[in-house]
Amino acid sequence: MRFRKVLDAIETYEAGKPIELVVREFGIAPEEVVKLASNENPLGTSPRVAETIRAHADKAHLYPDDSMFELKAALSERFGVPRETIIIGAGSDQILEFVSRAKLDEKSSVLMSRVTFAMYAIYARQQGARILRTEDYRHRPEEFLPIMEREKPEVVYLCTPNNPTGDAMSRDAVFKILERSDPETLVVIDGAYMEYAAAKDPAYRIDPAEILDYPNALYLGTFSKAYGLGGMRVGYGIARPEIVRALMKMRPPFNITTLSLAAAIAACGDEAFVAESIALHQQELPRYEAYAKARGFDYIDSYTNFITWLFLEKMDSSAIADALLRRGVIVRDLASYGMNALRITVGTPRQNDRLFAVMDEVLG
Amino acid sequence: MRFRKVLDAIETYEAGKPIELVVREFGIAPEEVVKLASNENPLGTSPRVAETIRAHADKAHLYPDDSMFELKAALSERFGVPRETIIIGAGSDQILEFVSRAKLDEKSSVLMSRVTFAMYAIYARQQGARILRTEDYRHRPEEFLPIMEREKPEVVYLCTPNNPTGDAMSRDAVFKILERSDPETLVVIDGAYMEYAAAKDPAYRIDPAEILDYPNALYLGTFSKAYGLGGMRVGYGIARPEIVRALMKMRPPFNITTLSLAAAIAACGDEAFVAESIALHQQELPRYEAYAKARGFDYIDSYTNFITWLFLEKMDSSAIADALLRRGVIVRDLASYGMNALRITVGTPRQNDRLFAVMDEVLG
Repeated sequence: MRFRKVLDAIETYEAGKPIELVVREFGIAPEEVVKLASNENPLGTSPRVAETIRAHADKAHLYPDDSMFELKAALSERFGVPRETIIIGAGSDQILEFVSRAKLDEKSSVLMSRVTFAMYAIYARQQGARILRTEDYRHRPEEFLPIMEREKPEVVYLCTPNNPTGDAMSRDAVFKILERSDPETLVVIDGAYMEYAAAKDPAYRIDPAEILDYPNALYLGTFSKAYGLGGMRVGYGIARPEIVRALMKMRPPFNITTLSLAAAIAACGDEAFVAESIALHQQELPRYEAYAKARGFDYIDSYTNFITWLFLEKMDSSAIADALLRRGVIVRDLASYGMNALRITVGTPRQNDRLFAVMDEVLG
Repeated sequence: MRFRKVLDAIETYEAGKPIELVVREFGIAPEEVVKLASNENPLGTSPRVAETIRAHADKAHLYPDDSMFELKAALSERFGVPRETIIIGAGSDQILEFVSRAKLDEKSSVLMSRVTFAMYAIYARQQGARILRTEDYRHRPEEFLPIMEREKPEVVYLCTPNNPTGDAMSRDAVFKILERSDPETLVVIDGAYMEYAAAKDPAYRIDPAEILDYPNALYLGTFSKAYGLGGMRVGYGIARPEIVRALMKMRPPFNITTLSLAAAIAACGDEAFVAESIALHQQELPRYEAYAKARGFDYIDSYTNFITWLFLEKMDSSAIADALLRRGVIVRDLASYGMNALRITVGTPRQNDRLFAVMDEVLG
């Protein structure tokens, strides 16, 4: 059967390996597996949110409020932005998909960093758009701006903090790009890990309310990381109403579940959990930096809940990831991004102890 | 900001009004509201599935197994089909979206019944495809086949049982269309309400395993109706592996939530709940037929968990729906489908009592 030609160029996104798969493939007991591959919150689900989910379990047969009245009200209050500037997605990921489908076709181009979130390119390819990348994985305005001027891409992706590298753009750098961008170029500021960056250095905090000054800016946030709801698939976009209205045309009805909606509303009132998550992270991150130094390899200064270890030539990230996996520790190999590097979620003290112990075993 | 031209032609899908909205707008207490508008299971969530959800509430921070190994294994066993013929969607709705995006562009056409599930046309318009419709809302092969031969549409939608009308196609009629279809035309058999039709009359049961005999057939099923999980957004498609592989290219990672995955797996082992749902429905449906007869208006013989009441000229479905709404009873007006009709979910005995009492009040 014939399908659209654009499908020929699409690779399928390779998700982090779930614990179940390691259990099945290597016969390791589930409680022995340490998953540090998908940047899930090591504190788990907030007890308050888990309680809300349990209280709503009997409502699984009911469709959610498709207007998402309460959740938009909570986000509107949190960010000080009008309700009509907010769109909800099944993860901020789904809003990236709406962007692609609302803006791109075979004549379009998009611009992104050399190493960044894989779905930008996959969604662009689904629309047949041309993909432009900077040379550097870091988002430098000096590199983005000339390409933007020359190529007039329909969409520019600023992933800050950047996944899977962990570095970030300063507020000044983001607004420098916004200031000089063509009003027809949609500048997407993907702040999935923003809570960690903002806590580390206020100069890296992007305020969604401020991006509403620009007619071509879209801010993305998520409940998947600092809010601990990766499995519930809830993210949000904030932009001028005309952008939100266009994206809404690509939104399928009931795009988040009834329990996801309840969980996200509860999470909005649960800033203590976010603070605790960040505190744990800030306590544990230096251990990863110290381990790398002690072992003589490099790392990228992290503004996220993970760290990227950069290996020397004689060490092979794929071989290390595989050796860790066989011992029940799941991390993310970045070989497919052209980097001899591992992305590792900073876990609980116990998970991190285990990672270091198993690394010692593997490195000898 | 400019968006793709196709967006100009897209209307946004109007979802059934949630209970929360009626509470807000008309000041009716939530426990007083009767929602018979979205074909949710009136028995609620299966207690067994609700228990599974509660047991997994602490895992909301973990991404789901993106291979959906266990759920596919359960469906594979239920339907006697190989795992590689199965794709999972956020509702079967999302698989409709994959179909549109994998097959359609501005040069394509799609064929559907005059009155059928609204998302077929919306997803087709998102791709800029031309929409062809039969004259009759019923799916008659005599009407579909000549149009298929003449227009060679990329996709044909057979909604059986049909939503929002409630009628269905016999197995013979479906296979007559499949037999004579062009192998490049994807024939989508949307069986969202199939469990009700199969229980009413085995001649209306479509077996997903049988459609695998055709290189161009896709069967869709859902956990939203008979399985009572409308709020969890889980559906599935069954087709030859080459079709599934193409649709998988349009599937975003983690397209159902961790709790949805657990709930759907539990629901697969919960056939007693489905049987109970169908028994309740079969007990209550005749009351709706009798009410229509007593009041002198018509209805469509239903193969679903809802009934469509067809009003006489002097009765106005929109006015009746509005009067019901103000009294806290939510039903679905079909005026926007060009029908002077209401679609009403067959509820619990108490909900149905209330509906009839309020109808008496409204009709006088």
